[in-house]
Amino acid sequence: MSSVAKHLADLGIVLPVPVAPIANYVPFVRTGHVLTISGQISLGADGLMAGKLGGGVSIEDGQKAARQCALNVIAQIQAAVGNLDNVVRIVRLGGFINCTPDFVDAPKVMNGASDLMVEVFGDKGRHARSTIGVAALPANASVEVEATVEIA
Amino acid sequence: MSSVAKHLADLGIVLPVPVAPIANYVPFVRTGHVLTISGQISLGADGLMAGKLGGGVSIEDGQKAARQCALNVIAQIQAAVGNLDNVVRIVRLGGFINCTPDFVDAPKVMNGASDLMVEVFGDKGRHARSTIGVAALPANASVEVEATVEIA
Amino acid sequence: MSSVAKHLADLGIVLPVPVAPIANYVPFVRTGHVLTISGQISLGADGLMAGKLGGGVSIEDGQKAARQCALNVIAQIQAAVGNLDNVVRIVRLGGFINCTPDFVDAPKVMNGASDLMVEVFGDKGRHARSTIGVAALPANASVEVEATVEIA
Repeated sequence: MSSVAKHLADLGIVLPVPVAPIANYVPFVRTGHVLTISGQISLGADGLMAGKLGGGVSIEDGQKAARQCALNVIAQIQAAVGNLDNVVRIVRLGGFINCTPDFVDAPKVMNGASDLMVEVFGDKGRHARSTIGVAALPANASVEVEATVEIA
Repeated sequence: MSSVAKHLADLGIVLPVPVAPIANYVPFVRTGHVLTISGQISLGADGLMAGKLGGGVSIEDGQKAARQCALNVIAQIQAAVGNLDNVVRIVRLGGFINCTPDFVDAPKVMNGASDLMVEVFGDKGRHARSTIGVAALPANASVEVEATVEIA
Repeated sequence: MSSVAKHLADLGIVLPVPVAPIANYVPFVRTGHVLTISGQISLGADGLMAGKLGGGVSIEDGQKAARQCALNVIAQIQAAVGNLDNVVRIVRLGGFINCTPDFVDAPKVMNGASDLMVEVFGDKGRHARSTIGVAALPANASVEVEATVEIA
């Protein structure tokens, strides 16, 4: 068992089955040592976490949605590289928060994704990040997260 | 005639003249084998495809707008590398859909861009993708698409 | 004194202290010769430039906000590479404009950032760019700018 896989087991985290794209694109592309992961929405075992921050969805629920997106990102990384020990660095996360125009706490929501990355990968999980509040997301998902990853 | 150019001709696709940036930036930058294409809006031979999805613009018209953005992306790639056979892989498309807050079908709209990439480049056109619904776009364009491309 | 540092002094530009992330991420990540800078909001010496374009913030004030974001980006680049002469190319800026749904002049606002890059780095500052209007930004900042930079 790889070191990260063991760490995931110790944390009690079971990765979801990677979500298949619902259109004419792929979940990830490798270019040299850079892995680009398609935007992952907040779709979990219990269904889609949907709705707008500032419009009925609490910050706590938004954080859970962001964490779910990050789990989906990690599942795609594993599908791409096989062994998560091949992750050299989580380079960047792009966080898209589905929210009302008066919502100002997008970073707090996105922390649900960032914290998971550091929890799972340690210092290799510390990433650059851009977080924005968007008018709408696919299927009304609460959060979408895309990623750039350096791999061995 | 290059292989992709011949394929374009077979498909009856005539690339538009690359759109010049309207400000102090450039349409593309090459860094090693990675080509970064600036966001291209839905400006075609018949003018700008404008307006919001969910606010008067149909999904079908949105798909045409996304396809036009992708045509503009390919025109910029050709301007950058000369011969489209130098495209190794369309790595990533970023799709920005100008829409109302209740619009949930951004992926369907963005398929207009993704489908064109696969139509033109085959398996090399299969890309990672992030699609979001945005509050506003330059000049009220319906769609904007940015791209990352691996080149020989 | 490096050449870019001297040019900054000639222009009378004093770089701000790099803004520390307010969460579990880092302001930049280096991968090979590519430097990824986290989204920088319009926070300056006089506080946060906040509010929406199209909703009380003028285009001129938006341009100042975009310029402030770009100053924060340059401060992060300097923190990352030490000497700004190590900048080979500003590859890409992503511009997020906090605006109302009817705002169509996001590119004019973003020029505040683009112009500064060319002012400071000359031809090395000419970048690819994507500009979008977003529903909301962290802390209600008027503008957020992220960057990709090629470094020696």
